[in-house]
Amino acid sequence: MISAGIVGGTGYTGVELLRLLALHPQVELKVITSRSNVGMAVSDMFPNLRGKVDLAFSEPTADNYKQCDVVFFATPNGTAMHEVEELLEAGIRVIDLAADFRLKDIDEWEKWYAMTHASPTRVASAVYGLPEINRDKIKGAQLIANPGCYVTAVTLGLLPLLKNKLIDPTSIVADCKSGVSGAGRSAKIPLLLTESSESVKAYSVAGHRHYPEIKQNLREIDARADLVFVPHLMPMIRGIHATLYAEVTGDMDSMQSAFETLYADEPFVDVLPPGVYPETRSVKGSNYCRLSIQALPDSNRVVIMSVIDNLVKGASGQAVQNMNLMMGLPETMGLDALGLMP
Amino acid sequence: MISAGIVGGTGYTGVELLRLLALHPQVELKVITSRSNVGMAVSDMFPNLRGKVDLAFSEPTADNYKQCDVVFFATPNGTAMHEVEELLEAGIRVIDLAADFRLKDIDEWEKWYAMTHASPTRVASAVYGLPEINRDKIKGAQLIANPGCYVTAVTLGLLPLLKNKLIDPTSIVADCKSGVSGAGRSAKIPLLLTESSESVKAYSVAGHRHYPEIKQNLREIDARADLVFVPHLMPMIRGIHATLYAEVTGDMDSMQSAFETLYADEPFVDVLPPGVYPETRSVKGSNYCRLSIQALPDSNRVVIMSVIDNLVKGASGQAVQNMNLMMGLPETMGLDALGLMP
Amino acid sequence: MISAGIVGGTGYTGVELLRLLALHPQVELKVITSRSNVGMAVSDMFPNLRGKVDLAFSEPTADNYKQCDVVFFATPNGTAMHEVEELLEAGIRVIDLAADFRLKDIDEWEKWYAMTHASPTRVASAVYGLPEINRDKIKGAQLIANPGCYVTAVTLGLLPLLKNKLIDPTSIVADCKSGVSGAGRSAKIPLLLTESSESVKAYSVAGHRHYPEIKQNLREIDARADLVFVPHLMPMIRGIHATLYAEVTGDMDSMQSAFETLYADEPFVDVLPPGVYPETRSVKGSNYCRLSIQALPDSNRVVIMSVIDNLVKGASGQAVQNMNLMMGLPETMGLDALGLMP
Amino acid sequence: MISAGIVGGTGYTGVELLRLLALHPQVELKVITSRSNVGMAVSDMFPNLRGKVDLAFSEPTADNYKQCDVVFFATPNGTAMHEVEELLEAGIRVIDLAADFRLKDIDEWEKWYAMTHASPTRVASAVYGLPEINRDKIKGAQLIANPGCYVTAVTLGLLPLLKNKLIDPTSIVADCKSGVSGAGRSAKIPLLLTESSESVKAYSVAGHRHYPEIKQNLREIDARADLVFVPHLMPMIRGIHATLYAEVTGDMDSMQSAFETLYADEPFVDVLPPGVYPETRSVKGSNYCRLSIQALPDSNRVVIMSVIDNLVKGASGQAVQNMNLMMGLPETMGLDALGLMP
Repeated sequence: MISAGIVGGTGYTGVELLRLLALHPQVELKVITSRSNVGMAVSDMFPNLRGKVDLAFSEPTADNYKQCDVVFFATPNGTAMHEVEELLEAGIRVIDLAADFRLKDIDEWEKWYAMTHASPTRVASAVYGLPEINRDKIKGAQLIANPGCYVTAVTLGLLPLLKNKLIDPTSIVADCKSGVSGAGRSAKIPLLLTESSESVKAYSVAGHRHYPEIKQNLREIDARADLVFVPHLMPMIRGIHATLYAEVTGDMDSMQSAFETLYADEPFVDVLPPGVYPETRSVKGSNYCRLSIQALPDSNRVVIMSVIDNLVKGASGQAVQNMNLMMGLPETMGLDALGLMP
Repeated sequence: MISAGIVGGTGYTGVELLRLLALHPQVELKVITSRSNVGMAVSDMFPNLRGKVDLAFSEPTADNYKQCDVVFFATPNGTAMHEVEELLEAGIRVIDLAADFRLKDIDEWEKWYAMTHASPTRVASAVYGLPEINRDKIKGAQLIANPGCYVTAVTLGLLPLLKNKLIDPTSIVADCKSGVSGAGRSAKIPLLLTESSESVKAYSVAGHRHYPEIKQNLREIDARADLVFVPHLMPMIRGIHATLYAEVTGDMDSMQSAFETLYADEPFVDVLPPGVYPETRSVKGSNYCRLSIQALPDSNRVVIMSVIDNLVKGASGQAVQNMNLMMGLPETMGLDALGLMP
Repeated sequence: MISAGIVGGTGYTGVELLRLLALHPQVELKVITSRSNVGMAVSDMFPNLRGKVDLAFSEPTADNYKQCDVVFFATPNGTAMHEVEELLEAGIRVIDLAADFRLKDIDEWEKWYAMTHASPTRVASAVYGLPEINRDKIKGAQLIANPGCYVTAVTLGLLPLLKNKLIDPTSIVADCKSGVSGAGRSAKIPLLLTESSESVKAYSVAGHRHYPEIKQNLREIDARADLVFVPHLMPMIRGIHATLYAEVTGDMDSMQSAFETLYADEPFVDVLPPGVYPETRSVKGSNYCRLSIQALPDSNRVVIMSVIDNLVKGASGQAVQNMNLMMGLPETMGLDALGLMP
Repeated sequence: MISAGIVGGTGYTGVELLRLLALHPQVELKVITSRSNVGMAVSDMFPNLRGKVDLAFSEPTADNYKQCDVVFFATPNGTAMHEVEELLEAGIRVIDLAADFRLKDIDEWEKWYAMTHASPTRVASAVYGLPEINRDKIKGAQLIANPGCYVTAVTLGLLPLLKNKLIDPTSIVADCKSGVSGAGRSAKIPLLLTESSESVKAYSVAGHRHYPEIKQNLREIDARADLVFVPHLMPMIRGIHATLYAEVTGDMDSMQSAFETLYADEPFVDVLPPGVYPETRSVKGSNYCRLSIQALPDSNRVVIMSVIDNLVKGASGQAVQNMNLMMGLPETMGLDALGLMP
């Protein structure tokens, strides 16, 4: 059994980690911290966990974590970078679900996150936790930077085309749609049901923090890659639908097989047959990414549709997948839930 | 391994059975039938099952079922009663998720369902599949009448009070609220998102088919029991919230403990602490029933709140629970999923 | 033209007043105040008003109001009672959309609102602004206590039966369902889309502030009247559905006609034909209350269904209706919008 | 007063026309037809109209229409082309809300709509009813082709840039998001609340009927124009959000003023200030189109966001606007409703 801890378990990635880890056959939840809720039973905050999670929130002290083999940071950006050092030195594996270790370029990170980075050397050694790209590195990693939700959907949707040089890497448009849970469990007026249901809007159009992260991923495949990325808020709880547009430079007919070949052995990437488009609900509550490719011969463009559950493959499920890899467990363990339909 | 079949797998109770059985560690799905979709891959209709359910829909013939240890009928009312005989005679266990075997009074059944019953003798021997009432009988049953969704929520909410004679059994009002999936996967205008979202309405106020079934359950505990039952359609997919009102005749203070005592060992009934009220989302996708009791001393009334997921504890999850009991498996096997929150 | 002002225009009753008054043919909006948003254009906060409302928020000073014939308080409970005196003395008509002047019993008010009342004498002279009960008094009133949303739906649903002594006034159960906008435009976690969509829950079961207000209304008709009142939160923006249960003491057959007779000339109360039940969406954005009566002869009970838009007939529309009456305008002026369907 | 008729009033554009025309100060509704509902009161189907629309559905006969000055066709595609001739010859003005007269190229129309066109000569004389482009022609028109919903949002969003040659007309990507009402009031499983809420999906990716209509509009401005157009279904009732991407060839800084200049006098087009992005809910129930322009200097691209209510400016509101123009009424008459927020 693996002993696991969660730092900052009061947000949506935290409660989703709890939901997944509570049923993981090889994990024992040892500690979950929340500075502002010390002593409160976790299941008083999240009654879906009643009967399965008996922990109370505790202080975020190093002593509390030292009983753990692996610690997940489900904290706001800029927290983990101050706290991982002591854990890593104690030999504990760390998976950060926030953005602290995602961007290799510290200047870029500091620009987008408007903070001074507290742990640049750990950025260098951190492994970017997208198993479909970095599976082998993840297995040996001590510190994982768990990818952003939009980033996961977009990267998986573009990877086969960029790798096989089938598209112009400078022509990409990523129009992304997310459920409201992507904005976190925070008391803000625009996130109220009264404000965000029965409505659609774009946001951060002039620049969103996931843009440099997507760009970093794409440029590891093709150094010229760039994109326009516009996120939108959808009137629903969970799910991301990335609609990706690019100009085709290669063979239109080979695109479907490029996806099928690259992802043939991926346990959580599902390439749909031609002409079938994915719905976000087909992955609700599950760790799958479903992909569809539609060539538009008249226009020399291709449209890729990529859907994930932002809280599972886009956050906590991917973190568990990374944990499984780090700990030598079967990669899919504890992640077999199917999408909740309807 | 148990071999299982599903008759009529194209509705919501069918796909929910598939979702649950596909991951059940002791079940092998052998056959799923749909007269109008023979040959179609199940996962083409329900893409959330891709990669886990490889079956295609087949003809509903007895030969197809004879490879099964247990067969679930996820068919419209009035279908199973024509088809179970051959299966039962072949020694196959049958769980009917429709209403064919729920009402012991055939006249009452024929009045409410506006059909002549085709199998009255099987009604007599069928076991009503509410484990919290009939656990021992279910274990030996060959034919299970799986309870209605509203019926499950209401019965579990009233059982402790009626059993302990704490309320006037003639004073009950059951105001029930259900998500739209309770109306099934049928192409009807009032069920469109455009018609049923952003709206609430009552329906079947003058009489709903679950009324005689609730009454039958309550009268097994107290022969005088009766109730007013009004169902409402809520703008959401899943979930039932039953708000139950009754006049208190016993001791107000003993009501909470009556619930806690009766359900102490029930794996899927969760009595909340005083003052905490249940949300339907806390059981979304899970087999739990969550209950809360609020006494109103000034008025001599009590309010009980009972929530379930209508497709799980209200249908397919309860059917799997019954299967586990019939087949000698651990009652909770394959049913450990927690509510999807948010 | 009537000059109107709004105190505290940043909540939902405020913006709804703005929407209605901006198009009212006899009203000129003169001032709208918000201490924390002085100088901000109203249409920057509420872009639906762009092009029709050119005001900016100003300081809530008496000078600002003195250019007005009528001032609406769309403030939290406990604000208007401190501020109306100066306005009333200056001859300005005041309509308070909060609860400060609703309860005639000051002790009761102080108990439920947990404040000392600052203006008990004005409570005595305030007119309760439910036109269907108090039309004549409203016409001459200087200070109106605009009714609560649940209170409006429940009172209109019970009035004909109590007046005609057709029900036992002690047997009433009011199970009420409201959209989330009823909770106001406040940044609270339980009101997030992620928390309140796809879910139903009861709240304030042990006691809600609208209970004494409903009781006060009912007791003006029958001094013995009492009820159980349980509000529920629905996953939608607007709408209240009150489901009212009572024991019938009079003639079942006369109930429908009691409603039709009493409301025959009411411009905003619509009694549906027998067997037709109201949907909240049929009044979305409109000032109507739609009512349906269903007798249950077997049980000697009656079920009344009453729907309103909580922000219109339940708040700002009713306030405009009261203003029209106070100012000698046609009662329906500016209130002719029909429900937005779908 | 103008006498108006509606052919096929049982869909969403029909009921929306009824809602608007019932309150139009210069229109008298004379007739509304529906072959399958003859004799049924319109308000029995659409209870939001109770008390304001007293008509019953009648037979779609020419006699019925001949009492009308203007007739709206709210019928499926392919109906009006068979029926307008008799009306036009009788001097009645006709507004077709379907697609029969939208495409000037008959071959193109027949390809996309898979029918033989029954009235090509009327196509030639029909006026495309987008007032922002064709106001003068509409004034003298006898037959109006009312634009498609997506087409309205996309055309208004691109017009200023194409007209001022600020973008590469071959580089356009239109990622469009629509509420479910755009799919009409038809009993189809994918449109059920259970299937389309809590989910997002693309559809008709390989080709949607609004594509040739958008292209026709754009090519009237620039003959080289082309685009990729992908529609998506959003989990909400009303609203379209078009997100438009193009490569900038002109001066980035002049784009905002190109919009403001072109639309300065348009009563229903609202250009937002820089940096403010539109929400579909700000136009819910209203005839506005709200637009925002965001230049992305690093990428040489521009993003335009365009929102409308698909049933108002995207259909029935625009039809009333066209009627006002045809009949010499003030263009905004009966269309002053503001967006319903929240």
